[in-house]
Amino acid sequence: MTYKIKSRIWIEVDNVTFLGEGRVRLLKSIKATKSLSKSAKELGMSYKKAWNLIDSVNKKAEKPVVVKVSGGLGGGGTTLTEHGLELIEMYESINTNCWNYLDKQFEKYSQD
Amino acid sequence: MTYKIKSRIWIEVDNVTFLGEGRVRLLKSIKATKSLSKSAKELGMSYKKAWNLIDSVNKKAEKPVVVKVSGGLGGGGTTLTEHGLELIEMYESINTNCWNYLDKQFEKYSQD
Repeated sequence: MTYKIKSRIWIEVDNVTFLGEGRVRLLKSIKATKSLSKSAKELGMSYKKAWNLIDSVNKKAEKPVVVKVSGGLGGGGTTLTEHGLELIEMYESINTNCWNYLDKQFEKYSQD
Repeated sequence: MTYKIKSRIWIEVDNVTFLGEGRVRLLKSIKATKSLSKSAKELGMSYKKAWNLIDSVNKKAEKPVVVKVSGGLGGGGTTLTEHGLELIEMYESINTNCWNYLDKQFEKYSQD
């Protein structure tokens, strides 16, 4: 039998979820599709649900994370701000570091 | 606004949960009550549910975690083995270490 340690991390603000796995997945999808409706479809959620998640992230963030862009070649859409990109990177870096840390911890304790 | 990083850890064996927050809570309760039915009641779950959780832990562990004891002053009951006590301690130590690690990581990334 192979034992493995797993984890899930999220960020709260005033005891309410600000950013977790699902929201990061949505942000990453928006980064790729540049469209909230396409991303909602991709992740199998309603447009309203996706909009509420993004609205919640935007309102709880220090600076806007997702913004609407109008015009341009593609006729506008939804895009991530610099701050949004930084948040994704922070979340994923800490997540990876946490996994590595836990693997080492688990190995250490399993040997005791 | 105060941002805080949170986490949840669990141990899987062959991709199935072996030990997580709920099971550790149940084990700790059994350690205190020495009774599966009392612990089930304390945690607001059915006896069957509690029994299934413990049975799952026992079957997936390298050695028994919870055992029935018969006789004695209290007329028998349920108790944790040495291995069960070690598992709780391991889980809680790694969990606390993980929280401290994540707090430091979050502080570091928040300053960037």
